[in-house]
Amino acid sequence: MELIRWNSVDPVAHRKQIRERYDELRKAGLKINMARGLPSPEQLDLVDELLAMPGRTDYLAADRTDCRNYGNPQGLAELRGLFSGMLGIAPNQVVIGENSSLSLMHECVTYALLKGVGDSSPPWVKTADAAFLCPVPGYDRHFAICQELGIRMIPVPMLDDGPDMDQVESLAGKDPAVKGIWCVPKYSNPTGIVYADRVVERFAAMNTAAADFRIFWDNAYAVHDLTEDPPQLANIVDACLRHGHADRPFVFASTSKITFAGAGIAVFASSEGNVAWFMKRRQYRTIGPDKVNQLRHIRLFRDEAGLRALMAHHRAILAPKFTKVHEVFEALLGGSGVAKWTQPKGGYFISLDVPDGCARRVVELARQLGITLTPAGAPFPFGQDPRDRNIRIAPTFISVEDLAKAAEAVAVCTLVAVDESVSKERCL
Amino acid sequence: MELIRWNSVDPVAHRKQIRERYDELRKAGLKINMARGLPSPEQLDLVDELLAMPGRTDYLAADRTDCRNYGNPQGLAELRGLFSGMLGIAPNQVVIGENSSLSLMHECVTYALLKGVGDSSPPWVKTADAAFLCPVPGYDRHFAICQELGIRMIPVPMLDDGPDMDQVESLAGKDPAVKGIWCVPKYSNPTGIVYADRVVERFAAMNTAAADFRIFWDNAYAVHDLTEDPPQLANIVDACLRHGHADRPFVFASTSKITFAGAGIAVFASSEGNVAWFMKRRQYRTIGPDKVNQLRHIRLFRDEAGLRALMAHHRAILAPKFTKVHEVFEALLGGSGVAKWTQPKGGYFISLDVPDGCARRVVELARQLGITLTPAGAPFPFGQDPRDRNIRIAPTFISVEDLAKAAEAVAVCTLVAVDESVSKERCL
Repeated sequence: MELIRWNSVDPVAHRKQIRERYDELRKAGLKINMARGLPSPEQLDLVDELLAMPGRTDYLAADRTDCRNYGNPQGLAELRGLFSGMLGIAPNQVVIGENSSLSLMHECVTYALLKGVGDSSPPWVKTADAAFLCPVPGYDRHFAICQELGIRMIPVPMLDDGPDMDQVESLAGKDPAVKGIWCVPKYSNPTGIVYADRVVERFAAMNTAAADFRIFWDNAYAVHDLTEDPPQLANIVDACLRHGHADRPFVFASTSKITFAGAGIAVFASSEGNVAWFMKRRQYRTIGPDKVNQLRHIRLFRDEAGLRALMAHHRAILAPKFTKVHEVFEALLGGSGVAKWTQPKGGYFISLDVPDGCARRVVELARQLGITLTPAGAPFPFGQDPRDRNIRIAPTFISVEDLAKAAEAVAVCTLVAVDESVSKERCL
Repeated sequence: MELIRWNSVDPVAHRKQIRERYDELRKAGLKINMARGLPSPEQLDLVDELLAMPGRTDYLAADRTDCRNYGNPQGLAELRGLFSGMLGIAPNQVVIGENSSLSLMHECVTYALLKGVGDSSPPWVKTADAAFLCPVPGYDRHFAICQELGIRMIPVPMLDDGPDMDQVESLAGKDPAVKGIWCVPKYSNPTGIVYADRVVERFAAMNTAAADFRIFWDNAYAVHDLTEDPPQLANIVDACLRHGHADRPFVFASTSKITFAGAGIAVFASSEGNVAWFMKRRQYRTIGPDKVNQLRHIRLFRDEAGLRALMAHHRAILAPKFTKVHEVFEALLGGSGVAKWTQPKGGYFISLDVPDGCARRVVELARQLGITLTPAGAPFPFGQDPRDRNIRIAPTFISVEDLAKAAEAVAVCTLVAVDESVSKERCL
């Protein structure tokens, strides 16, 4: 790759060079989609044996449950045990869902709106102006649930060790309409940070004006490490219990990025009280989730060690992709001062910050090169990044070769956008 | 089996005889559960090849979709095509869900409550006293959704050809708070009747005070015939379109009683407008249902003929069970005038009517013999049968041998309960 670096010494030469490179890339006819955090086909191949599981005569769970028939709404005990180990939450406090943890979150919000959480709290629809705290940048699909269901969103800055807890404590502490917060506590989407122990502790200890405040703890990347010595996330369920706020956290996880993204297993875990509440609400909705798929996953993993061994294979595929993006960004943007990006130790995203006011333009310039990026602003409520500077990079789905091209294109587009904003002269 | 028939000539001898038989049955130590409409293990065995499907290298749909990954929220085109044939509704008006049609109904109700149906109708939570018409006896889980979500239930008598349409038209025609009706139009749960063509026509043509009135058309037994020349159900979607009420019906179906009860495929089908509405709401809930399970079902059925061939095997297992219950009831209760029961041509239930005020007692007496029946009153809102006379018999799960014992026990319990109510003297 020809190095088209930021050149502050000779702006005219720099402008000419980056615009020539941009034109070359446009002529290359790229067509690369890195908008979403999809696992790659190579990752899906890792568990293709699932496609013939559990096997023609294998349908009985450990307790002799016929997995083909109705029933067992909480899920097979042995699979709850496996997730229990993965999440550090007792098996009786784990509920197996269908194939989507997003669905379980949406369900919890709708149950809360229509019935209230716990035994005695009023339905959230009765709360004028019910609100959620939204650490930003964050996960667009979380915010979309609030937007769809009319829940007010209050942005809170995401720092390097978690949300700005001074603001969280202040907002949740004084406004009883603040009913919850969205969290991706490990390898946060998109910044990749891991909540520090002291952040988890403050979440558990803080006073909330709403007695029915709930933390939506979307532990989507619980075991999705990119290093061999991964950071440890403190246990929110234990911490909340210790502080007398046992019912505060709703924990979600799934195997969408462990086995098959479309055909995995989703999990809800919480206090005994919240599990009883969730099951009570859910009994009106389903006679039980797909137990054959549960059995399939038990046969695949065998135990928690099996699950963790599988994650090492994912890491072997994913780590070079994250490294490649960093290398290209470093080569083209390093030391320029015009961009900074995260180097996460796990998860599915890299968060790129460009100069204020440039993110939409970078995404548009990339689109014209045939590179589809997550829309600028997506990680913010209503898709509005107030500084228009954040871009979510999703490196998992595409090959390292395509990733090198796409990352170069993003870097060149960043240089062009910055130059345009300085020169007030559009590239196209 | 010793014939313990109704004996009106010698009541004293009759009383002695039935109570002796009851005591014998009690000593037999029966333990038979026929409370729910579960498929039997023999039925589940019919499709055990699903347990090893689609096969280790088989994950591409006809359009090259990788079924292992995210996406395709409406479901694979070829499976929509198959359900299209089964339901007589265009493929683009079919949505594949997860494993439970009950979930899709619950979802539609919650979407309607929180967002309204269609583009411009207000959320049902804004309607004071929103109500559903509930043909009785009907399906307890339908009524339970209303009870859970605070929707008023208005019972309407179920006749031999469908709900009492004079009452339906009157109630839906004048009260804008009446937002919907629950229907199991083919082999109605529990009476087994099939809605007559003229009933379907009246549903489609009637005026409703609520512009956003919806028929929840739970076609759970669309292909679940017990005879070779089954009755045909008129097409509600076509009829409503013809009468200018295209958006009136929400149609639901599933393979829960075609393949695996716990691991089948559920379907929503409706007008193009309603499908757009449903998908728009659903996009906030899930990135897509389990496409590997969709592929599994495509590989199993191959086409609609394959599905119908499978149903013939179900019929061969189920028809003798329904026949056995009828034979036993006829032998013990026939001509007695104390009971009447349905002889459905399909579906999963027999509806038994005993004299007013006796149903709970029959269920209790049966319980003491070790026979678990659906609670008396279950097919009515709030579980309250105003005449306490209806008992739902679920003959599908247990063997013909157990069914003979259970049916005899129910018949004897009926005779005892009637005798108790006449003699005012309890058996125990």
